[in-house]
Amino acid sequence: MADTQRVQVSVAELSRHNTKHDCWIAIHSKVWDLTEFIDEHPGGAGILLRCAGKNATNDYDQVHAPAILEENLPSDRFKGILEEAISDIPPKGTVTEARQKNEATQNEENPLRNPELHTLISAADFEKIARTALTPKTWAFYSSAATDLITHHQNKAFLRRIMIQPRVLRDVRKADFSRTILGNKTAAPFFISPAAMARLVHPDGELALAKAAAAEGIIQCISNNASYPLGSITQSTDPQQTFFFQLYVNIERQKTTELLLKARDLGIKAIFVTVDAPVPGKREADERIAAVAIQSAISGATASNDKKGGGLGRLMAQYIDKALQWSDLAWIKETSGLPVVLKGVQSVEDAKLAVEYGVDGILLSNHGGRSLDTSQPAILNLLELRMKCPEIFAKLEVYVDGGFERGTDILKALALGATAVGVGRPYLYSLVYGQEGTQHLTQILKDEIEVSMRLCGLTSLDQISPDLINTSDIDYLVRSSNKFPDIANTRGRAKL
Amino acid sequence: MADTQRVQVSVAELSRHNTKHDCWIAIHSKVWDLTEFIDEHPGGAGILLRCAGKNATNDYDQVHAPAILEENLPSDRFKGILEEAISDIPPKGTVTEARQKNEATQNEENPLRNPELHTLISAADFEKIARTALTPKTWAFYSSAATDLITHHQNKAFLRRIMIQPRVLRDVRKADFSRTILGNKTAAPFFISPAAMARLVHPDGELALAKAAAAEGIIQCISNNASYPLGSITQSTDPQQTFFFQLYVNIERQKTTELLLKARDLGIKAIFVTVDAPVPGKREADERIAAVAIQSAISGATASNDKKGGGLGRLMAQYIDKALQWSDLAWIKETSGLPVVLKGVQSVEDAKLAVEYGVDGILLSNHGGRSLDTSQPAILNLLELRMKCPEIFAKLEVYVDGGFERGTDILKALALGATAVGVGRPYLYSLVYGQEGTQHLTQILKDEIEVSMRLCGLTSLDQISPDLINTSDIDYLVRSSNKFPDIANTRGRAKL
Amino acid sequence: MADTQRVQVSVAELSRHNTKHDCWIAIHSKVWDLTEFIDEHPGGAGILLRCAGKNATNDYDQVHAPAILEENLPSDRFKGILEEAISDIPPKGTVTEARQKNEATQNEENPLRNPELHTLISAADFEKIARTALTPKTWAFYSSAATDLITHHQNKAFLRRIMIQPRVLRDVRKADFSRTILGNKTAAPFFISPAAMARLVHPDGELALAKAAAAEGIIQCISNNASYPLGSITQSTDPQQTFFFQLYVNIERQKTTELLLKARDLGIKAIFVTVDAPVPGKREADERIAAVAIQSAISGATASNDKKGGGLGRLMAQYIDKALQWSDLAWIKETSGLPVVLKGVQSVEDAKLAVEYGVDGILLSNHGGRSLDTSQPAILNLLELRMKCPEIFAKLEVYVDGGFERGTDILKALALGATAVGVGRPYLYSLVYGQEGTQHLTQILKDEIEVSMRLCGLTSLDQISPDLINTSDIDYLVRSSNKFPDIANTRGRAKL
Amino acid sequence: MADTQRVQVSVAELSRHNTKHDCWIAIHSKVWDLTEFIDEHPGGAGILLRCAGKNATNDYDQVHAPAILEENLPSDRFKGILEEAISDIPPKGTVTEARQKNEATQNEENPLRNPELHTLISAADFEKIARTALTPKTWAFYSSAATDLITHHQNKAFLRRIMIQPRVLRDVRKADFSRTILGNKTAAPFFISPAAMARLVHPDGELALAKAAAAEGIIQCISNNASYPLGSITQSTDPQQTFFFQLYVNIERQKTTELLLKARDLGIKAIFVTVDAPVPGKREADERIAAVAIQSAISGATASNDKKGGGLGRLMAQYIDKALQWSDLAWIKETSGLPVVLKGVQSVEDAKLAVEYGVDGILLSNHGGRSLDTSQPAILNLLELRMKCPEIFAKLEVYVDGGFERGTDILKALALGATAVGVGRPYLYSLVYGQEGTQHLTQILKDEIEVSMRLCGLTSLDQISPDLINTSDIDYLVRSSNKFPDIANTRGRAKL
Repeated sequence: MADTQRVQVSVAELSRHNTKHDCWIAIHSKVWDLTEFIDEHPGGAGILLRCAGKNATNDYDQVHAPAILEENLPSDRFKGILEEAISDIPPKGTVTEARQKNEATQNEENPLRNPELHTLISAADFEKIARTALTPKTWAFYSSAATDLITHHQNKAFLRRIMIQPRVLRDVRKADFSRTILGNKTAAPFFISPAAMARLVHPDGELALAKAAAAEGIIQCISNNASYPLGSITQSTDPQQTFFFQLYVNIERQKTTELLLKARDLGIKAIFVTVDAPVPGKREADERIAAVAIQSAISGATASNDKKGGGLGRLMAQYIDKALQWSDLAWIKETSGLPVVLKGVQSVEDAKLAVEYGVDGILLSNHGGRSLDTSQPAILNLLELRMKCPEIFAKLEVYVDGGFERGTDILKALALGATAVGVGRPYLYSLVYGQEGTQHLTQILKDEIEVSMRLCGLTSLDQISPDLINTSDIDYLVRSSNKFPDIANTRGRAKL
Repeated sequence: MADTQRVQVSVAELSRHNTKHDCWIAIHSKVWDLTEFIDEHPGGAGILLRCAGKNATNDYDQVHAPAILEENLPSDRFKGILEEAISDIPPKGTVTEARQKNEATQNEENPLRNPELHTLISAADFEKIARTALTPKTWAFYSSAATDLITHHQNKAFLRRIMIQPRVLRDVRKADFSRTILGNKTAAPFFISPAAMARLVHPDGELALAKAAAAEGIIQCISNNASYPLGSITQSTDPQQTFFFQLYVNIERQKTTELLLKARDLGIKAIFVTVDAPVPGKREADERIAAVAIQSAISGATASNDKKGGGLGRLMAQYIDKALQWSDLAWIKETSGLPVVLKGVQSVEDAKLAVEYGVDGILLSNHGGRSLDTSQPAILNLLELRMKCPEIFAKLEVYVDGGFERGTDILKALALGATAVGVGRPYLYSLVYGQEGTQHLTQILKDEIEVSMRLCGLTSLDQISPDLINTSDIDYLVRSSNKFPDIANTRGRAKL
Repeated sequence: MADTQRVQVSVAELSRHNTKHDCWIAIHSKVWDLTEFIDEHPGGAGILLRCAGKNATNDYDQVHAPAILEENLPSDRFKGILEEAISDIPPKGTVTEARQKNEATQNEENPLRNPELHTLISAADFEKIARTALTPKTWAFYSSAATDLITHHQNKAFLRRIMIQPRVLRDVRKADFSRTILGNKTAAPFFISPAAMARLVHPDGELALAKAAAAEGIIQCISNNASYPLGSITQSTDPQQTFFFQLYVNIERQKTTELLLKARDLGIKAIFVTVDAPVPGKREADERIAAVAIQSAISGATASNDKKGGGLGRLMAQYIDKALQWSDLAWIKETSGLPVVLKGVQSVEDAKLAVEYGVDGILLSNHGGRSLDTSQPAILNLLELRMKCPEIFAKLEVYVDGGFERGTDILKALALGATAVGVGRPYLYSLVYGQEGTQHLTQILKDEIEVSMRLCGLTSLDQISPDLINTSDIDYLVRSSNKFPDIANTRGRAKL
Repeated sequence: MADTQRVQVSVAELSRHNTKHDCWIAIHSKVWDLTEFIDEHPGGAGILLRCAGKNATNDYDQVHAPAILEENLPSDRFKGILEEAISDIPPKGTVTEARQKNEATQNEENPLRNPELHTLISAADFEKIARTALTPKTWAFYSSAATDLITHHQNKAFLRRIMIQPRVLRDVRKADFSRTILGNKTAAPFFISPAAMARLVHPDGELALAKAAAAEGIIQCISNNASYPLGSITQSTDPQQTFFFQLYVNIERQKTTELLLKARDLGIKAIFVTVDAPVPGKREADERIAAVAIQSAISGATASNDKKGGGLGRLMAQYIDKALQWSDLAWIKETSGLPVVLKGVQSVEDAKLAVEYGVDGILLSNHGGRSLDTSQPAILNLLELRMKCPEIFAKLEVYVDGGFERGTDILKALALGATAVGVGRPYLYSLVYGQEGTQHLTQILKDEIEVSMRLCGLTSLDQISPDLINTSDIDYLVRSSNKFPDIANTRGRAKL
């Protein structure tokens, strides 16, 4: 590569290599010959060919971490330095074109167009900004949920239907909301939930989340589909910072083994195995926007234009192992040597199995309503578990996510026995402002928790219990037992 | 007829025969003398007279199958071939005029105006398209429901209020959703519900439905009010294809006997006797659009402008026998020699009677909310039956329809013991795109069922049970017993 | 009076008598000296003085029956025949002026502006028309209800929340919905509820209602505040026609005695004593429109601009006796010699008292939501009574009104034990089309009942019972007992 | 001060003293040297500096009572009389500027723009007027509630969900709604709830409220954050007038002691200690409008632009003692020698503690939804208390506030055992019309109570009981007990 470092490639020269059999592409002023790589591109050949003979920096940056290209290509594929900057014009017909149409509202390019960060005073404010600041495609990917959005909306609505009965006349000068999760100290009883491809929102992506989490003393759970390599993320901040890692088990188990070993080596503190998405849910907003190639740096999840069309979510899920089952958990635990948490438990029965299989924690979750629509709101699962199986809370840690936006939302889950709450979409939306946005959101949530604790008469989270809340408005929704008698023989019925 | 085949009739000549006593009409370039037929026209004399002396091809095609005219008229009524094509201008003041006003949004004439089929990704998408693609009259006929649409809306709403509790960590590489209905294999646990006059949506009408059903391996239940003759439909596709036939019993029982014999001969596999519409419901949207003559090819149901006015639905129901009762079922079963299913059962009591009378299946249905408004949503009837009379499911097959649009909707019914689900309006709407549309809709529903099964941890429909779902949000709506003590003697009360 | 019959009074002459001390007014071409009558005018002196020296025919006709003037004034007050017709211009600043501003939408003056009657197919259609056809003041008076309209809206909503479970396969060629109310045959199980001042809608007012009721074979309950004299109404149609009479007991009991004797003489069949309005409710829409003088022909209820302002409803209620109590019922019954029905019972306790006091019927009613807002919907009162005191239905007849607009609404009440249902506002709205409108509405309701009966499997109202309906959606709203333990001594509490 | 009384200060002279080290400000034509006072200004130095060298009368008047300045500043700080009136132009960049932008809608400056008072006929009408008549900041301060406004809206909604079952045929000529609160007679069963800074609405602020209360015979509970000194308020009207005083306990307890002694001396009849706001709730509408300096005359609560930003509510709460607890109540009671009421009790447990600690009354309140969002509506707390602890009502008086706007709202609370109801926001809104508005609102509420009592069959509040109402629609929301079994050891769980 040394020789070519000084070679100049003109735009005219670049543009001549624009076919499937002779395909040069410029990224960050460097020109690469990708001819042999076309068919291996996880995002499909099409997306590369549309960039053939052109400067594709914009497209690349949208979804790939800077280091990936140089790390993965042989050095002889480097052809030289692009002569001029003028070719920064994005190729026609690519994603970038769509992006540019929306560029006026994009945050990284027009940061000044967004309101000043200090004027945002709630998690909902971040969502409001993101709705206009993100590209339509990114907004669709993050905001969408399964089919009719019923579970998505109920996640939040059910939280709001739980009422609080504050206690008065207690000395609330102190309000300690620190917590311990799987033995790890955290400044607050919530963590950053894993969510894919944070670079779609901000160039710093998961790095910004990591730095903000460290600065605020909270834990980040890194997505298997993060847009930066796992190591880049863990090493971007204080080595003492606690990270969890969310895992999709790969059809090629060996890849998962390697990933788990890497996670262990990088000091990850727990593995959150996603169990509620053997296939991706049908997120229609996402499906409605044509897919483009996106590569996740960690899992190599691919996203290509297949004939069916397919949203970003569906494309990125192609590598997930649909055959994963309870008996596989031992392998994950053994390989990683780390505590294992099941992300996506949605029934009392599976919570019991989790105890049986020696799992360390369960995250009651319906994937933010993105997996199966009309599945129960997560808080209802927590309520059911708390009512029917209180003993489980003594045997493993229970977390919950989906729709949590307020300090009171979080306190309600804690009152029902949760150890901590995952916050997902709001953190992605906070990335519109980069690390600073993520810290600001964290401070808002902390402030809301602190104020709410005081107004509830609580000085420490150890004092919290179901006595604080009134769940009567959703109690009737907890599934009752034995209301359906057995049918003797439905299918093979004897005709009259 | 042979002689006149070569006779040319000029437009001027045709136009002279334009009275009640001398009425010629041209259809598909053939001129017929309908003078003697005027008073027998099921659609009423008025509609014919408005076409007297004119080319009425457009009107005819809208509602009649091509073969009906030549099959039913004596050959000496044929007067010759119309000289010119220019008379294809529709007569003034007829339906066609109304159609033309809306022609810009009509699909068969402007197929390019509708979005490309592959961009439709849900049953609701088809409804959205149909709303603009159909003529106002056709839209009103299909989309309307009884009076205040309460049952219509609740059919769907109640389905969505049932929650799912998915199970995790099961090997879901396989997801088999094939089913057997009355001994007939089907690729999916749903069938095409009978709906009248599919030609109103697409020229191919029920033929397109039949071909699509065969291609997708599902069963079509043909409407008694189909716009094509029963034989045309069954013979339009693979002879192995399974058809059911929906029956309105005619006031003239002999006609029903003939129809049942015909159905048996054509290889129909079951008779669905409609029992929830001895008279048609009051569908106001339909009523508000003035009635025009429409003839159903199978039943000869008539539609005429009577003094009360009357929507398409009301007009077509005039021949239905209001006296049909339980004791008539034996006759239907015996005559047809086929399994009999009652379409429109809405109470546990009638479900029990159905068992008693040796019926093979019941379709819990409120006619898509079109019959009696505020009658219970069909899924609530299913829930009630499953709670109170589980033994019934072992004695006959139970189906349900009304508001089913999602894979999850269908799985919920199966969880409550249904053998299969009927899908009606969405299939009619799919006909905007003809057979291809119907297949596309079928694929969407299959895909949703498959994805949902996997997300629920199911690999076969045999595994489904009430354990999968949480019906708590509608349990309280199941009618309780004994809350109304008897009144000793209300009417003949003794005055104080 | 004979002499002056031929005297001509010129417009100039008339206009000279335009003061409080010399006040002539022309009505229907006759000129009257009303000077001595000014201070006795129930509508206040102001309204008369504004007409002094003018032709006030328009104003008079709006609210007074034609015969009242000649019946009540001494003949020497008649001054002659007005010379010219040109003075038909309404005086400035009177009601008529306000009316004219809205005249474009008024029905009697612009009958052609309203849709043709046959295009109206539901009770709701009549309301829709009335909203624009009536003057704002009249619309406000009839459509308004107490304060926040909660009871008004719930009356209808609760009816719709009751579900029906139709029975199938019964011979429903016949559907007999005739009924007997207090021994009087009626063609349908509903009657025209009393409502004040029908002339505000149509010049024929209660006369049109009476003729329509007779033509359709149903019973009319005449309002105490009717705009025509009671005798004019009863004598306007077939002497065999059944009338009930609604009574507000007057502070001057003697007036009530006279009225009851008159009612008895006129052949009235029952007295409906209003008991839910000792004072009028606060109907804000009505209050917001400044009051004008309106006189009820029967009760002499006055409506004047007092300092507080006051809607039509409040003004007309000034004569009502707030002291009326249970022990007064014997007097009413004895005086009239007629069956007595209590209109406005709203609790089980009062229903029991009604039995105890020998009442013949109770009309469960909240005055169409016009009396006390947030009082229980009438159908809930019926449900409670049916659940808790079924024996009451054997001891007196029970009626119900408030929000009934559909055939199914009415059948639901009958299923809960009601003998008949009162229909109020829809009948007033039907008067936009005069008698013909009232008949059309009646036919619509009959048709809906007939169709609904057939769809329910009913051939006679005698077959109706709670089995037909599912009230689960409102059962929980029936007041439960004993949930509030006694407080030992709340007010005179002993301080700690 | 005598000497300088005649000194004339020119505008030019004034404008020279415009720095932090030489700061003159003119208020009401008097010029003061505030240089030494800048850093002590409770509202912060910034706001003073913006007025340096200028006439700040407008700003001052908005939030300070007239007497405060002369009472608190040494007389040698007085510099003379401002020469001309022309300098009445408000300084740039101050609150006044914002006010002027909205001045077209401000009531005191444009009283004619508001509808005439007699056209307002309900409490809701006052809110509607205030929404446009107040400055956006003032509107935000008063109308805002915590975070998502859920409790705020439910306060009112839950009241409306309680149904009434009126009794009929009782002599209701009399309707006595007078009441005794803590031994003090009052003309009506409601009182004016304390609310801060009434001068923001009207220059007469709390003085107008006091005079109106006296004129109408009702009790005013004065806010600790009133904009007039406590003495000015109590002395503004009839010495027999009953006042209560709402107290925030100050971090500097001595200040509270002084305040209590003062209250006692001024003849205050009871102390309402606020216990539901150790910290202020998060009122986002308020927070979104930048804070400006506002000083409460009684508590000296400060409002300054701190770095976090902060709404008026948050700023004014800085002096409140977060450590206040049950054991402090004895000190308050002893110091004041007055009955003590706890304002903001929200649980049965705390109601019991209140009895235990010898409290005289509790005000069930969630601070109008301003404190902790999703806390229970106050009426639900009352219902729960009435169901579970009826004995409490015999041991102390119970009041309730939050969302009460109608006579029926108030009667419902009394039916559940409340002695009286607090009315807050509506009274502030009534101040748009000054004292006259407050009296008019009081008359409306009285009239609604009187009419409602009669329609309910009540002649005295002593007759009221739970029998009058049907709470079934919210009964299920009363927290049930024992549904959450204990968790043995959640936090320190033994790993499996």
